[in-house]
Amino acid sequence: MVDYANEALSIHKQNKGKIHIELNDKLDSLEKLKLYYTPGVAAVSMKVADNKALLRDYTWTGNTVAVVSDGSAVLGLGNIGPEGAMPVMEGKALLFRHFAMINAVPIVLNVHSADEIVAAVKAIATSFGGINLEDIAAPICFEVERRLIEELPIPVMHDDQHGTAIVTLAGLINAAKVTGRDLNTSRATIVGAGAAGVAIAKLVKEYAPAIKLTAVDSKGIISNKRQDLNESKLTLLKLSDPIQLNGGLKEAIKGADIFIGVSSPDILSQDMVRSMNKQAIIFAMANPDPEIKPELAKKAGAAVVATGRSDYPNQVNNALAFPGIFRGALDNHVNRISEKHKQAAAETIAALVEKPDFDNIVPSIDDPRLVSAIARIIV
Amino acid sequence: MVDYANEALSIHKQNKGKIHIELNDKLDSLEKLKLYYTPGVAAVSMKVADNKALLRDYTWTGNTVAVVSDGSAVLGLGNIGPEGAMPVMEGKALLFRHFAMINAVPIVLNVHSADEIVAAVKAIATSFGGINLEDIAAPICFEVERRLIEELPIPVMHDDQHGTAIVTLAGLINAAKVTGRDLNTSRATIVGAGAAGVAIAKLVKEYAPAIKLTAVDSKGIISNKRQDLNESKLTLLKLSDPIQLNGGLKEAIKGADIFIGVSSPDILSQDMVRSMNKQAIIFAMANPDPEIKPELAKKAGAAVVATGRSDYPNQVNNALAFPGIFRGALDNHVNRISEKHKQAAAETIAALVEKPDFDNIVPSIDDPRLVSAIARIIV
Repeated sequence: MVDYANEALSIHKQNKGKIHIELNDKLDSLEKLKLYYTPGVAAVSMKVADNKALLRDYTWTGNTVAVVSDGSAVLGLGNIGPEGAMPVMEGKALLFRHFAMINAVPIVLNVHSADEIVAAVKAIATSFGGINLEDIAAPICFEVERRLIEELPIPVMHDDQHGTAIVTLAGLINAAKVTGRDLNTSRATIVGAGAAGVAIAKLVKEYAPAIKLTAVDSKGIISNKRQDLNESKLTLLKLSDPIQLNGGLKEAIKGADIFIGVSSPDILSQDMVRSMNKQAIIFAMANPDPEIKPELAKKAGAAVVATGRSDYPNQVNNALAFPGIFRGALDNHVNRISEKHKQAAAETIAALVEKPDFDNIVPSIDDPRLVSAIARIIV
Repeated sequence: MVDYANEALSIHKQNKGKIHIELNDKLDSLEKLKLYYTPGVAAVSMKVADNKALLRDYTWTGNTVAVVSDGSAVLGLGNIGPEGAMPVMEGKALLFRHFAMINAVPIVLNVHSADEIVAAVKAIATSFGGINLEDIAAPICFEVERRLIEELPIPVMHDDQHGTAIVTLAGLINAAKVTGRDLNTSRATIVGAGAAGVAIAKLVKEYAPAIKLTAVDSKGIISNKRQDLNESKLTLLKLSDPIQLNGGLKEAIKGADIFIGVSSPDILSQDMVRSMNKQAIIFAMANPDPEIKPELAKKAGAAVVATGRSDYPNQVNNALAFPGIFRGALDNHVNRISEKHKQAAAETIAALVEKPDFDNIVPSIDDPRLVSAIARIIV
């Protein structure tokens, strides 16, 4: 990160951010103004007011999403507020445009309760064709997403949950293949009980219902002996193997096939990796520093190591999923991203790797087939 | 309007609206992604979180405004709701970009009380460098604007009020000049007690404190004998000539120098124009059909006739004012548009007409000097 800081600051300042608005058509005469603005626009407004479904055809809303954050859980930076979140949300808008030709408007919110976030997003939602929630802290993110999905007629997705879960599952599908495993007979330990951890557990369990999951938070294994479990941890408990272990990560990881980390740097030791089953699969996705350095995991015997980083093989990056998912939802007028869509997206991403190997379980984010392949299955 | 309807519908549908988002810099390598997004963006987020004033330098917010409407008073169309309002707001965004190189995001609100509108705009305001309120019905628009100006650290302007008032005053300055009048010894009748009427009365009275104003609504002259006056009509009463007339428009217009209409089509008859002072000035700004057709007003003896229409001389168009005002506010970090700014903007617009005559009292909206001339005085 340090290497990039100065150059990133300079390029952001020089360009005054990353995106701007352009006109779809050259305004080369005042006559055109009369068509796009008054008096011509009145006919368009009346037509749309009469049939609201036409909004997406006659305005930019049909190809425009809001990227919404309250700045309460930004990247690895935590609760840095709406101003601090804006460069990241504008970055997400850049990814939407670059990968999927979708207009994305970064919206940072100066309110932080579930009620206020829901009210603000509902108030502005008619302006957009979809809502990408981003970097909102757990557990509020769960309630916000659930209510907005229920109450809005446009697709709403919290990318930190589902983007991460989809790409993790895509990677796991290929990691299982290259290590000769069946996920349904595997045992996996998930560390981290935030937004991403819960979503990964849900999606993996739906894809491979017989997989044995053990979830771990900073206090140890999430078991029915714990008295301190909030809603999201209770969800993880429900998804866990009924034969519960006790103890911490050391106890949870012993004999496991798969480690899935969305937690903190350097919590997985080489001894822990050695205690796993042979040909172990390690997804160490803490950002920017993973739960174990890939070279250490490899030396301790891991077969496949994935991280969130671009400087190692197997980058688990949300940008593999969300551009295609929103592209498909907008193009196909899909107003709810279902669990089936997410599973199909993961399988589609996995299938794009024609010959997966230990260092090649997910496509590159600039794979030109990605967006259209995913968009096609969001129907 | 009828002539433009079909072509406007077709051009809007064909282009899927009027604006889109583009990248400031070509993303020609994955290395650039690392600067604009993770990991590089973390340094930008931390810097901005530490010093929130830097937000405008490192993100697009410094050159971006929201065009916000709840769709309760759209053009001449009335309360057509947020969907119906969107084509107009997107049109306004097009004008912002075309005339002033400002990014404008059309935001239509699905809430309509002053409290809810204020809450929604405050929740999203950190995302923008300014707020252009648009097409919100009186009297709610007054409270919304007042509270947002007080509570937000960025410029907020309800363009239907102040844009219209500024351009009307600009036109009046030149109309007085070409008819050999002093506004301070003139008598003016204002018809229409909505957002625009109140703002025009305020600004004209500040510019020419001795001008004698009479305000008229659909029930007649607004006088202290009326028992039905709401807040905005009481404001108009305070600005009115203390020697009050009784009756309707017929009584109010007799002997007046100036007619200012922001009301309904065809309410001003030729007989009424004949009853005015010689060399009468008529601003018939009802949209799309003016209070009197210019050719009829001229035949009845009016010297200067202005309308909101582009197919007659003297088009009083908000687009003469708001691009330069927001350009100046953003460039000069002005967080409140004052009454002095509005007066100076009107004088600047008027002064751009080097040789005003009866049919030439305001510049054309594509006058290339406009935006920078106005922006310069917003300091």
